[in-house]
Amino acid sequence: MKNRILYINPIGSPDFDKEIYNFLENGKRQDTEVTITSLTKGPPHIEYHYYESLVLVDTLHKVRLAEKEGYQGAIIGCFYDPGLREAKEISCNLMVTALCEASLHIAVTLGNMFSIIVGRNKWIPRMHENVKNHGFESKLASFKSLDMGVLDFHKDEDLTIRKMKTLSREAVEKDLAEVLILGCGIQFGFYRELQKEIGVPVIDPVLASLKYIELLVEIKHRLDWGISKAWGFESPSLEEIQRFKLEEQYKIKGLWS
Amino acid sequence: MKNRILYINPIGSPDFDKEIYNFLENGKRQDTEVTITSLTKGPPHIEYHYYESLVLVDTLHKVRLAEKEGYQGAIIGCFYDPGLREAKEISCNLMVTALCEASLHIAVTLGNMFSIIVGRNKWIPRMHENVKNHGFESKLASFKSLDMGVLDFHKDEDLTIRKMKTLSREAVEKDLAEVLILGCGIQFGFYRELQKEIGVPVIDPVLASLKYIELLVEIKHRLDWGISKAWGFESPSLEEIQRFKLEEQYKIKGLWS
Amino acid sequence: MKNRILYINPIGSPDFDKEIYNFLENGKRQDTEVTITSLTKGPPHIEYHYYESLVLVDTLHKVRLAEKEGYQGAIIGCFYDPGLREAKEISCNLMVTALCEASLHIAVTLGNMFSIIVGRNKWIPRMHENVKNHGFESKLASFKSLDMGVLDFHKDEDLTIRKMKTLSREAVEKDLAEVLILGCGIQFGFYRELQKEIGVPVIDPVLASLKYIELLVEIKHRLDWGISKAWGFESPSLEEIQRFKLEEQYKIKGLWS
Amino acid sequence: MKNRILYINPIGSPDFDKEIYNFLENGKRQDTEVTITSLTKGPPHIEYHYYESLVLVDTLHKVRLAEKEGYQGAIIGCFYDPGLREAKEISCNLMVTALCEASLHIAVTLGNMFSIIVGRNKWIPRMHENVKNHGFESKLASFKSLDMGVLDFHKDEDLTIRKMKTLSREAVEKDLAEVLILGCGIQFGFYRELQKEIGVPVIDPVLASLKYIELLVEIKHRLDWGISKAWGFESPSLEEIQRFKLEEQYKIKGLWS
Amino acid sequence: MKNRILYINPIGSPDFDKEIYNFLENGKRQDTEVTITSLTKGPPHIEYHYYESLVLVDTLHKVRLAEKEGYQGAIIGCFYDPGLREAKEISCNLMVTALCEASLHIAVTLGNMFSIIVGRNKWIPRMHENVKNHGFESKLASFKSLDMGVLDFHKDEDLTIRKMKTLSREAVEKDLAEVLILGCGIQFGFYRELQKEIGVPVIDPVLASLKYIELLVEIKHRLDWGISKAWGFESPSLEEIQRFKLEEQYKIKGLWS
Amino acid sequence: MKNRILYINPIGSPDFDKEIYNFLENGKRQDTEVTITSLTKGPPHIEYHYYESLVLVDTLHKVRLAEKEGYQGAIIGCFYDPGLREAKEISCNLMVTALCEASLHIAVTLGNMFSIIVGRNKWIPRMHENVKNHGFESKLASFKSLDMGVLDFHKDEDLTIRKMKTLSREAVEKDLAEVLILGCGIQFGFYRELQKEIGVPVIDPVLASLKYIELLVEIKHRLDWGISKAWGFESPSLEEIQRFKLEEQYKIKGLWS
Repeated sequence: MKNRILYINPIGSPDFDKEIYNFLENGKRQDTEVTITSLTKGPPHIEYHYYESLVLVDTLHKVRLAEKEGYQGAIIGCFYDPGLREAKEISCNLMVTALCEASLHIAVTLGNMFSIIVGRNKWIPRMHENVKNHGFESKLASFKSLDMGVLDFHKDEDLTIRKMKTLSREAVEKDLAEVLILGCGIQFGFYRELQKEIGVPVIDPVLASLKYIELLVEIKHRLDWGISKAWGFESPSLEEIQRFKLEEQYKIKGLWS
Repeated sequence: MKNRILYINPIGSPDFDKEIYNFLENGKRQDTEVTITSLTKGPPHIEYHYYESLVLVDTLHKVRLAEKEGYQGAIIGCFYDPGLREAKEISCNLMVTALCEASLHIAVTLGNMFSIIVGRNKWIPRMHENVKNHGFESKLASFKSLDMGVLDFHKDEDLTIRKMKTLSREAVEKDLAEVLILGCGIQFGFYRELQKEIGVPVIDPVLASLKYIELLVEIKHRLDWGISKAWGFESPSLEEIQRFKLEEQYKIKGLWS
Repeated sequence: MKNRILYINPIGSPDFDKEIYNFLENGKRQDTEVTITSLTKGPPHIEYHYYESLVLVDTLHKVRLAEKEGYQGAIIGCFYDPGLREAKEISCNLMVTALCEASLHIAVTLGNMFSIIVGRNKWIPRMHENVKNHGFESKLASFKSLDMGVLDFHKDEDLTIRKMKTLSREAVEKDLAEVLILGCGIQFGFYRELQKEIGVPVIDPVLASLKYIELLVEIKHRLDWGISKAWGFESPSLEEIQRFKLEEQYKIKGLWS
Repeated sequence: MKNRILYINPIGSPDFDKEIYNFLENGKRQDTEVTITSLTKGPPHIEYHYYESLVLVDTLHKVRLAEKEGYQGAIIGCFYDPGLREAKEISCNLMVTALCEASLHIAVTLGNMFSIIVGRNKWIPRMHENVKNHGFESKLASFKSLDMGVLDFHKDEDLTIRKMKTLSREAVEKDLAEVLILGCGIQFGFYRELQKEIGVPVIDPVLASLKYIELLVEIKHRLDWGISKAWGFESPSLEEIQRFKLEEQYKIKGLWS
Repeated sequence: MKNRILYINPIGSPDFDKEIYNFLENGKRQDTEVTITSLTKGPPHIEYHYYESLVLVDTLHKVRLAEKEGYQGAIIGCFYDPGLREAKEISCNLMVTALCEASLHIAVTLGNMFSIIVGRNKWIPRMHENVKNHGFESKLASFKSLDMGVLDFHKDEDLTIRKMKTLSREAVEKDLAEVLILGCGIQFGFYRELQKEIGVPVIDPVLASLKYIELLVEIKHRLDWGISKAWGFESPSLEEIQRFKLEEQYKIKGLWS
Repeated sequence: MKNRILYINPIGSPDFDKEIYNFLENGKRQDTEVTITSLTKGPPHIEYHYYESLVLVDTLHKVRLAEKEGYQGAIIGCFYDPGLREAKEISCNLMVTALCEASLHIAVTLGNMFSIIVGRNKWIPRMHENVKNHGFESKLASFKSLDMGVLDFHKDEDLTIRKMKTLSREAVEKDLAEVLILGCGIQFGFYRELQKEIGVPVIDPVLASLKYIELLVEIKHRLDWGISKAWGFESPSLEEIQRFKLEEQYKIKGLWS
């Protein structure tokens, strides 16, 4: 039986679903089955934190649904890791991860210092806080900004890869990065050429999250190491959720019953 | 003209609105005018991070509405500071704060080390991360847990204050706290008796947020020191919000136009 | 009744008193009354730590006198925050702050990262230690040095502002500062033009300290949140001070009786 | 074709090889093939750092041999992670991990705070440094010591598990650990009962390292994300090794040719 | 020729001079010559930071005088290290240290973790900040308080040593300290018995400072490694000191000429 | 009687022994007697961590032998400080230090910030970790790389010193270093000219280690402050070493008996 993984594109547009699905298909293990989904409403990118907040609840309900439908793992497909804490809180047998968490753990295992290539300076403070909260502040060589929005990466892929190469060389030569991370799910597809050119591992966060969720599903199902339900990730009780009539209020009939 | 402040109780219940309003009324400056509001849907407490996520968008839209209606300041009335980053991002002339931010800045100004009295251990990891992100990790003496939910604090107030006194004494005598912080808006009303008994400042987060927003409104209007719009708190453009049809999708007609 | 604030220029020269007084007058709340004072002896700037030490006791005695004379607040007007710990220790009903403390708390509330514009590299190690001790190390984008002494800032104001603009642009564009802080009280008067030009809040430390002391006086008098007298800021007893004959020895008759 | 993993027991005794082999067999994926080995000389435990140093070179040469023999992964089977940096440095296609690295990454993904159950206080400073170097200092709830040497854990297993339960309860209830880690490879076999009793994930470091190396092998072979050879883990050149006649000097003929 | 060291007891009382002199005499190298001095005015202890400030200038002028009189080294004899930064700033050929600086460097060289035995909790915040500023926060096992003032240590020495033993055992057994530091110069005389009893090094700060200044004098005179005069410890120029008429103002005729 | 110090060049070549011996001779105190030794096998430099591991055991056995032969101190002559933890663990009356430990303690006493001049970027991650583990991360201004291997420093000394001067000026002017450290024992001989040129102390690590071991020997013999044998540096017992037949296995007959 295959492990079913749900990759959630937390945006209100299916535009990248097909390409990311194919990308994941090529990267998955044989015993992994990937489904991709995006949201029925929401902005087509979530560079702004307000946009993140708009898609948050629907993203979490995708996670909840995945658990109800028997998925083994879910991936929140954004490098801000929106809702990861909340998703761990509400999950029971389902394992969850997100792009930044997965990429960072892999990167620091492969090298001493890493750099993250972002789209815009705008993203850095939030991502920097994530890096710090994971504990990897002192392994962060630098953020490098492409000065491009999420929706620009695939408009002129030659331009994008050229810019990536320039920044990557700087990161390795000047900032002494040993590993590079592409800091956005929509930067998919560039890592192979980049790592061949630069000669250090270039972590694609989409594939990193796939590999990491495969690990998490494996440890959950073979060793029963799941999300700890002591303290921080303790779930709200179904009884309370029902007593508070949250299904009715949020029009999510059946999700919590 | 008075400075208009909106205190948002980010829960789907008006149960505490009246009491908190009165509490704020007694604590405000003469030139401050406070309005209190809570949400029309949502759970009656947000101890769980999933609950936080449920109320997030409505809370932010309250903030946005406050700006449109000409308020000078808004307070997000929860010690998790839910949505504070997002609220700063979308605000322009409006100043915003939240309970934890305000309490921490005041506490570290009054003493070297502080302790936070929380309801349940469940809350600690999230709050601990907030303390670290503010930079005050090394000034945190301890978290002390009452082992009570948000909705229990005012059920038997004698019991609550007795427990608070015991924990506070421990915090001061053993953990060497010099200032105490009540780690929940619904712990309002206990600080006076507690600080009289213990002899150190006891920061009520509701009043702390009121005083802090008064400061922020003052510096905004007199000195033009507002939320920086460079990088992290850069707002999404109205043009993009409209192009993405977010008003229609989220049924918030008029909020962004 | 007005809140009386004493601004102490901790230098042995009244040269800047008038200008700073006018500057404060324009920035104060209506219910604030500002007095300015400087010392009868001491160097005219305290860039050197030895100079700081020379003015320390007289500065603290100004603070003590302020308490005796019924002031509500006192400001130590130097960005090194000389004597702030000691001033908190000896104060009882009087609230105290200093330029760096006030500026940092405000800056980190308005943006994720800040830079400090100093006069000379000489100042940086001491100020850096202050930033770290406040907990804001990881929010510090950079120090930028004007390469000018304290007494040079107002010699050729055009030159000063030109240099400030250049450094500020670098701080924002390269170091990703979101807020700028002028790291010296004698840099007063430049913030308005600078923040208009650069487009991010520029914290003038003199005004920051005024606004912050207004907050501290407000919380002391309305909520009884004063300097904690537990542990670190516990005051020496009057009895001991008298027993040690400190008034006689230091020629401060009446200050501690 | 199966992925061949070498588990190196870095001690001069095969006493635990069989049991650990069986333990690994039960935990491995189907496409993993595990070989276990220990050293032909050396002390039977390496609690002392001098003992670690004695086994270091032989351990690294096992790693090197694994690469030459076409293994995909190697595990250094000690929670001090002896030689992990060096092993990463000399490896090319081979992936390597060690018990502490693997356990920590998994633990912090499953919970906010973790505790490590060690044999003796003696071990703590070295392990604490490892935790800090990985970046997880602020997620460490506590070390708890069984007051038992490595060779005692399986002498009276009932006693061991009883002590483990007591310490685990303390770690969860008092220190607020959400995940527990067994801080020694020879603590194998206890995690199942312990996590059933305590109700939080208990990371067995032997199995953690197996799952983590499976991840590393997977990313190396599918995505070509190997140990970065830029800067810190740059390997010495074969040419230099031969020029320095290291094979002759260390009697490792053929290892580097 | 002998190295002349000045030990400055920064208090307004010669009461401990003789005993400390004898203590130093027994601990010094043969080529060291120690002079002890205390101040002509000031409180007899400086537990309070205000008291520290009162003695600061006179202490620094003792340091300056030592340089003028050809001493090679000066010790500021208080564990708060009052004026150490300033003393380094004004010194040229003279080397300076203070009790905390010297004790910490020695302690962390001899063990992984250390505890400091203080007189009163009052002292801890200031000392904690010093420990952090030296970089040794993560090596600090604990502060342990005797609950005794400086002037009590030698009133009933049996009581003092009994209390020290109890706290020391706790520090080693519970807090895992490997080295103990006596956190006050007036705790002189107890270390020998204590370290014999407890079995770990007990750093007497007076002797630590003596040994450390001997090192500093040695490196200054043999290798010309003195206090760096770049940036932070750059001295004020004699020319400026004279221009500011500081000698006249502070009645220190001849000190700076 | 003289204090006998053994300087261990942890490489398999006596090539630098004579020069370093002469260098040490010129820097030692009169009551110090220095012996230099290198290893009978091993690579001629240990830039690679694998090389470090090859020389580790022989280095430690030199340390052990030094103790048996009645030396008072031993220095591990490499800036990676290889085996320092282990050497402290096995030493009893012998004191030990290594180049980085000694240099850092001296540097941070002489200035606020320091830079380290290394041979190649390769070295930085390991050294950076050492700096962090010592606690001096926030005092590190920068690493500057000469882009030269260990064996190149003395090939063209003019070139080396020219490069050193350029990097040193950058470190002081741009990175605000106040002290420079030469990050390799084989950089001996350059510090005098460099510090004369640059005007800040330039720490030669060979001499730093000599001065530091003189301090350690002094405190051990006069004050009985030795390596703490509580917890982390507890030595393995002779009884166990013999029971494990380590002398036979490692051909070190007589070393542990």
